[in-house]
Amino acid sequence: MPERLNQIKETTVIQLKDVKLKNPVIVEGLPGVGHVGKLVAEHMVEELGAEKIIEVYSPHFPPQVLVADDGTVKLVRNEVYADKKHNLLLLIGDYQSVTNEGHYELAEVYLNIAEKYGVKRIYTLGGYGIGQLVDTPRVLGAANTLELVDEMKKYGVLFQENEPGGGIIGASGLLLGLGKLRGIEAVCIMGETSGYLVDPSSAQAVLKVLSKILTIDIDMGALESRAKDMEKIVAKLREMEKAQLKPISTEEDLRYIG
Amino acid sequence: MPERLNQIKETTVIQLKDVKLKNPVIVEGLPGVGHVGKLVAEHMVEELGAEKIIEVYSPHFPPQVLVADDGTVKLVRNEVYADKKHNLLLLIGDYQSVTNEGHYELAEVYLNIAEKYGVKRIYTLGGYGIGQLVDTPRVLGAANTLELVDEMKKYGVLFQENEPGGGIIGASGLLLGLGKLRGIEAVCIMGETSGYLVDPSSAQAVLKVLSKILTIDIDMGALESRAKDMEKIVAKLREMEKAQLKPISTEEDLRYIG
Amino acid sequence: MPERLNQIKETTVIQLKDVKLKNPVIVEGLPGVGHVGKLVAEHMVEELGAEKIIEVYSPHFPPQVLVADDGTVKLVRNEVYADKKHNLLLLIGDYQSVTNEGHYELAEVYLNIAEKYGVKRIYTLGGYGIGQLVDTPRVLGAANTLELVDEMKKYGVLFQENEPGGGIIGASGLLLGLGKLRGIEAVCIMGETSGYLVDPSSAQAVLKVLSKILTIDIDMGALESRAKDMEKIVAKLREMEKAQLKPISTEEDLRYIG
Amino acid sequence: MPERLNQIKETTVIQLKDVKLKNPVIVEGLPGVGHVGKLVAEHMVEELGAEKIIEVYSPHFPPQVLVADDGTVKLVRNEVYADKKHNLLLLIGDYQSVTNEGHYELAEVYLNIAEKYGVKRIYTLGGYGIGQLVDTPRVLGAANTLELVDEMKKYGVLFQENEPGGGIIGASGLLLGLGKLRGIEAVCIMGETSGYLVDPSSAQAVLKVLSKILTIDIDMGALESRAKDMEKIVAKLREMEKAQLKPISTEEDLRYIG
Repeated sequence: MPERLNQIKETTVIQLKDVKLKNPVIVEGLPGVGHVGKLVAEHMVEELGAEKIIEVYSPHFPPQVLVADDGTVKLVRNEVYADKKHNLLLLIGDYQSVTNEGHYELAEVYLNIAEKYGVKRIYTLGGYGIGQLVDTPRVLGAANTLELVDEMKKYGVLFQENEPGGGIIGASGLLLGLGKLRGIEAVCIMGETSGYLVDPSSAQAVLKVLSKILTIDIDMGALESRAKDMEKIVAKLREMEKAQLKPISTEEDLRYIG
Repeated sequence: MPERLNQIKETTVIQLKDVKLKNPVIVEGLPGVGHVGKLVAEHMVEELGAEKIIEVYSPHFPPQVLVADDGTVKLVRNEVYADKKHNLLLLIGDYQSVTNEGHYELAEVYLNIAEKYGVKRIYTLGGYGIGQLVDTPRVLGAANTLELVDEMKKYGVLFQENEPGGGIIGASGLLLGLGKLRGIEAVCIMGETSGYLVDPSSAQAVLKVLSKILTIDIDMGALESRAKDMEKIVAKLREMEKAQLKPISTEEDLRYIG
Repeated sequence: MPERLNQIKETTVIQLKDVKLKNPVIVEGLPGVGHVGKLVAEHMVEELGAEKIIEVYSPHFPPQVLVADDGTVKLVRNEVYADKKHNLLLLIGDYQSVTNEGHYELAEVYLNIAEKYGVKRIYTLGGYGIGQLVDTPRVLGAANTLELVDEMKKYGVLFQENEPGGGIIGASGLLLGLGKLRGIEAVCIMGETSGYLVDPSSAQAVLKVLSKILTIDIDMGALESRAKDMEKIVAKLREMEKAQLKPISTEEDLRYIG
Repeated sequence: MPERLNQIKETTVIQLKDVKLKNPVIVEGLPGVGHVGKLVAEHMVEELGAEKIIEVYSPHFPPQVLVADDGTVKLVRNEVYADKKHNLLLLIGDYQSVTNEGHYELAEVYLNIAEKYGVKRIYTLGGYGIGQLVDTPRVLGAANTLELVDEMKKYGVLFQENEPGGGIIGASGLLLGLGKLRGIEAVCIMGETSGYLVDPSSAQAVLKVLSKILTIDIDMGALESRAKDMEKIVAKLREMEKAQLKPISTEEDLRYIG
C-alpha cells in the first residue's frame, strides 16, 4: 500500500463525514493566550451538540499523544465540528504548530476547508494578554476589512489604537491575513486576560458578544461554573503571593487545568 | 554511482538481512525518560541473542558519530533486531529525532517496517518521570484501543486517570497514535522513575510485566546487578545532597552510564 | 481554484503594479540594528512619494498580523516601492526571515526582482552597533567590489579594518554576498549606533551620505524631529540609570516606538 | 536566466578550477572546538601554497557576509584547496552548518567531491575539549575502520577508551560515519585543548603527527609564533582570574582572534 507510506509526513486532512451547510461561518478557537478562544469554541461544540467532520494531523504539531481517562491515546490534532442547525463550522484542537512554516501551512489548510464549504466569514477567537489580573474583561477586535470593523463595533467589540500592540500571532492572526488574500472576511475577537492563567471569565465575555453576532442562544452555565472555580484558585494564588510563596509552578499547572 | 549521492539527505533504511517471522510483535526501546525503555530493549537483544537486520540513518538524528572502545566510530542510528524463536522485532538506538518533523518521519518509517513484516501489535517502552526518587516503581500503560487497555490490565499494567498527564512524547507515543491510523494495535508500557537518573530498577519492573505478556522467560541478572550498582550511586548522591554538595553534574554523568 | 491552494506555503511575490524605470538602483532598509536602515528607507518612501509595486509574503516571516489604528490587519510582509522620478526601488518591511534558510530564500527573491528591473547597483542600509551611546555617529561601509569601496570613500563613507568585526547579518549582508555571485554591485552603508535603541540620529547620518551618492535632495525635517524626541528619551534614560532604575524594559518599549 | 533563480536555495558547489590529482587524500579543518582543525588546515593551505578550486555555499550556513580589511565582503562559505605536489585536497571554511539537516547535507556534498577526485582516505581534524587548560596536548584519534586505527597508532595517535566520550560532532564526525557507508577510509585526529580558547599549541601537536602521516615537511614557524602569542594571553587571563576579574568576555573575544 504505497500511498500510505509517509502518511503524516505532510499535513493531512481526514474527512470523517460530509455535511451540507448553507453559507456557513467558521469559528476558530485553537489554544492561545489564556486559552480564551479554546474555552469558547469547545464550549460551543458541547452546548450546540456539533459533530466532528474533519481531523487534521501534521508533523508541525508536537510529536505526542494525549492519554484519555480510559487509558486510550489520541494523536495531537486539530478538529473541525459542524453544527448544521446554525450553519457553523467550529475549529478546535490540542495544539497549534510548533514550527514557523507550519503555522502558515496549517492556516492555508483551514482556508482550503473554508473555501470547500463556501465559507464567507471567519471568526477567530483569542485572549489579549495584559500582564495583570483583569476584573471585567473588555472584548477587543481586529478585522481584515474596514466594513467588518464597523459592523463589529455595533456588537460592542472594541477597536482601540495600539491594541493589540504586538499584533496577533498564530492561527487567529493568519486566518485574517491569509484570508484577506483569498477574499474571505475574517475578524478576531479577543477577551482581555492576564495571560498567566486559563481564563473562563474572559471566555464568557467573548462568548456573550459572539452569540449576539451569530444570533445563537448558548447556555453559559458550564463556563460560568468554571469561571467561579478559577476565581477561587486566583483568590488562593493572591493569598499565596501575599504569603510570599512563589506561585509560578502553580500557574504552570493551572495553565493545563483548562 | 549517482544513486549514492546525498545518501542520508533523507531518512534511510538499510536492510542488512532478511528474516521470516510469524505474526511478529515489535518492542520499541529508544532513549527516553530514565532510559527505561532503552535498558529493557537492549537487555532483551542481548539475553535473547537477537540479530541485527535493519539500520536506520537520518538527517534528523544528531550530526554525530559515537566512538567505540576499539577506536572505531559508528554513525548515530536506530537499529532493528530480530529474535526468530520468539517472533520478535526489537527497535533500539542511540538517539531519537532532534527535529519536530523528524519524529513523525521516523515513526512512519518504523510503521512501514511493521507493515512489511505483518506486525499486528507494537509494545513501546518508556519511563514515567515523577520528579522524585521511587522505591517500588509502578508500571503504567496507555494503548490505542480499549480492548488492549483491558487486556493489559490483566497483566498488572496500571491505567490511571491523569497519568501520564503530559501525554507521551516521541516514538513511544507516535507509534501508538500513528499506528492507530494504520490499524496497528499498540500499547506503551511505562516504568515509574524519577526522571533524573538512568533507572535499571524501573526497567526491571517493566521487563517483568512485558515478559509475562510475551510469555518469554528472560534472565534478569544483568539488569538486577545494574540496578544494585545504581542503588549505590543513588545512596551516594543522597549523602552528597545531605552534605550540601550539588549533585547536578554527577547526575549528568550518570545519565550516560546507562 | 487549485492554484490558490497553499498560496503562502512558499515565498510569494505579488506584483501590484508595473512601472518602467531606467537603470534603477535598489535601496534596502529592512529592520535591523537600531532600525537605522528601516528609518532611512521608510523616510525616503514618504518624502519621495514612492508608490508600492510589490508585496512579498513568506512562511519564513513570523506567523503574525499587525493591527492598524483603524482596526484592520496586515499580514507580515516586505514591500517594494518605486520612485519613477529618481529611478529608485525601495525595499522595506515589518520583519526579516525568522529561519536561517528563509534569509537566503528571501535575498534571492529580492535579487530576482533586481534582475527583472535591470538593477545594476544595490544600496543596503543598516546600523553598526557598538554597545554604547553615540554622540556623532560615523557612517561605515562594506561593498562587494573594490571599485565600489573606492567610489564610496569619495562620499565620506568610512572603510575601517576590523569594522564591522562580526560581519553583516541578514538581507543587508546577503544582498552583497549573493549579489556578487550574480554580478550585481552592492554596498552596505551603516550608521554607528548603540544597538539598544531605535536611532533616528544615526539614520540622519546615513541619509545625508546616501542623498549625496544618489544626488537626490531629501527633506530631513521628519527624521530630525524624531531624533530630537529620541534625544529626550535618551536623556531620561540616562537620568534613570543614574537613579539606579534598570532601564531594560523601557528600552524594549522604545525599540518599537520607531 | 531561469537557472540562476534561487541560486543558493540549496547547497551549491562552484568549481573554480579543475586539477588532476593522483589518489589524493582530503584534510578537513572546519571550525570546531578550539579551532584546532581550522588552524592546522589553514596553516597548511598557506605553507603549501595550495590553490582554491571549489567554493561551497549553503542556506545552512549563517546568513552573513564577512568584511575583509579592504572593505570588500565575502559570503560565508566553505572552500576546497588543492596542493598538486602532494596530491592533497584541503577543506576549510568560516562556519559549519547551523541546522541539523544541513550538517548531513554538507557532509554528503564533501563526500561527493571526494568520490569525484577518487579520494580513498580522509583526515578530519579537530579539538578534544577537556574543560581545563592543557600544558602538553595529547593527540587522540578515532577512525572508521579497525585497520586505520592500527595504522594511526604507529604515528603516535592515541586511541583511549571513553575518549572522546560524547562522540565527534559535525563534519569531523560525519565524514567518518557517512564515509564508512560509502567505503571511504577516514580518521579524525584531535588535539587536546581546553575548549575555551583558540589553541594554536594544540594545532601544532596535531600538525606534527599529521605531517609524519602524510610525509610532508611543513614549516611550523607561523603556528609557533601564534602559540607564543596565545601563551601570553593565557598568562594574562590567569593573572586576571587570580585578581578575581571574570575573564568570560575576554575569552569570548579571544575565540575570534584565531
